[in-house]
Amino acid sequence: VAASEFDLIRRYFADATGTRADVALGVGDDCALLDVPAGQSLAVSMDSLVAGRHFLPADCPEGVGHKALAVNLSDLAAMGAHPAWTLLSLTLPQADEAWVEAFMQGFSRLANAFGVQLVGGDTTRGPLSITVQVSGFVDAPTALRRSGARPGDRLFVSGTLGDAALALRLRQAADVPAELAERLDRPMPRVALGRLLRGHADAAIDISDGLLADLHHVCEASGVGARVELNKLPLSGPVQAACRTGDWQLPLSGGDDYELLFSVPPTDAAELQQLCARAQQPVREIGEFTAGQGIVLIHPDGRETEGAPHGFDHFR
Amino acid sequence: VAASEFDLIRRYFADATGTRADVALGVGDDCALLDVPAGQSLAVSMDSLVAGRHFLPADCPEGVGHKALAVNLSDLAAMGAHPAWTLLSLTLPQADEAWVEAFMQGFSRLANAFGVQLVGGDTTRGPLSITVQVSGFVDAPTALRRSGARPGDRLFVSGTLGDAALALRLRQAADVPAELAERLDRPMPRVALGRLLRGHADAAIDISDGLLADLHHVCEASGVGARVELNKLPLSGPVQAACRTGDWQLPLSGGDDYELLFSVPPTDAAELQQLCARAQQPVREIGEFTAGQGIVLIHPDGRETEGAPHGFDHFR
Repeated sequence: VAASEFDLIRRYFADATGTRADVALGVGDDCALLDVPAGQSLAVSMDSLVAGRHFLPADCPEGVGHKALAVNLSDLAAMGAHPAWTLLSLTLPQADEAWVEAFMQGFSRLANAFGVQLVGGDTTRGPLSITVQVSGFVDAPTALRRSGARPGDRLFVSGTLGDAALALRLRQAADVPAELAERLDRPMPRVALGRLLRGHADAAIDISDGLLADLHHVCEASGVGARVELNKLPLSGPVQAACRTGDWQLPLSGGDDYELLFSVPPTDAAELQQLCARAQQPVREIGEFTAGQGIVLIHPDGRETEGAPHGFDHFR
Repeated sequence: VAASEFDLIRRYFADATGTRADVALGVGDDCALLDVPAGQSLAVSMDSLVAGRHFLPADCPEGVGHKALAVNLSDLAAMGAHPAWTLLSLTLPQADEAWVEAFMQGFSRLANAFGVQLVGGDTTRGPLSITVQVSGFVDAPTALRRSGARPGDRLFVSGTLGDAALALRLRQAADVPAELAERLDRPMPRVALGRLLRGHADAAIDISDGLLADLHHVCEASGVGARVELNKLPLSGPVQAACRTGDWQLPLSGGDDYELLFSVPPTDAAELQQLCARAQQPVREIGEFTAGQGIVLIHPDGRETEGAPHGFDHFR
């Protein structure tokens, strides 16, 4: 029989179907068959990107493909897990080969960069959306959970905060500097940092909803509060400029950063900073976890305010 | 902080978050942490259901919840895998609590019936669609692949064929008999049969796209042809009546049956039929696999025609 449009599209999946030895059976059967290394737990996560909400139909499809996988790998990073396999479900209004080819270029390039193999998925006609599932390995006792932060732990973040939110804000008005656009469209999951934090961090999360919202998740899961010193926040030049007006919304509530937020016992903080410096992983201590509830923001002038977790909520 | 609508909806996920001992960490962190039994391979699959294509927005949400999981468990059944865990991604136009509650009732009831635990997922605003990922365990050498059918193997199917397609056809015109509607809305994945077939069947697939389309998949993967005797097809009374006009489209090309199609070496066929009878698994030999290519249909009058795989193609 002649190949249908459906078959034609699935050809592009092949770019991401590598040759991991632990894949006994990959794309093309009812299920994939996979082998988890002895002694390791499986870490799994799944996230959807919906057109008009997480990206625009006119966005560069290569970037959408990158991001659909990146946001999922970021969840593995936040557990300290080593990425292994992915499943992809694509829903498309029509069989647009050019779009799928570019989408899969972005997806496959990132998958190959992290040694991740595409082992299955499906393609359906419908409103444009993407669901990606990822699996990785981690030694369960060293996995970085949200619930392990303790009063007195130092509060760290990686990279810089607010760049993606600034890119999104500028995009609506004007051209966006390339380095900001890159932070919004092609976030790099902090997989290596997550692996490095095992055995050092008490808790970790990836910053997808904004610093305060995700810090709130850690505080709630751990039964602690936190203090954040605003003048310690790691900011790029453009975000620093935007904050000079006293509006800290970008770094505090801007989503899509995909940096890691983590807690480190005070006795371990100096050593961890050295480890990160040697591994060229940019991390910054921005505050501490406290007994009790709530997040306190310490402003540059010493004033203290409550940090309400204004995260991104899909139903608001 | 006050619970958002988002949080309210996720409460209903709790019905399906059981207490499997192999779930080290379930819903609520960046990833779930899971333990695969030593010596077992992981079987994984993922499928999306899109409103307007796989179901209608006005369909009973409890049935949609059942079916979203059932079609995925059917993929595990077709590999002979034992179901274990599931991830759920729900995209909804609005935070409709009543819809989600009913959806999760259908989803959770089926999950609990098969001992499957919901270990993660997300909820997003957007056009109504559902993506479900499932994982199960199987001893890799006994897994039922599509590629193992050999010339001379007997061709079997389970249950009856065409009921779901007839229910769909009738639904557009009139009331549907309850037992037909059940076959369309609440298919039961043949998990026990799949487990039983390990070590007996050379190849298996679940019939989601229609008998001929899925038989074609097996033939292509195995490099064989097949002969199907139409008067051996297992048909319910209503489908039998529809076929009396000589139109075999319902059992041959009707999708959504979720029965298993499998190949059995001729020396093993009698024993397998006894095993299935004892396990109260209805199976029927309907033909055989042949050397060469193509599917031949043997009509009740002895006439032979070519069986073109008119499966359901989402992009046609």
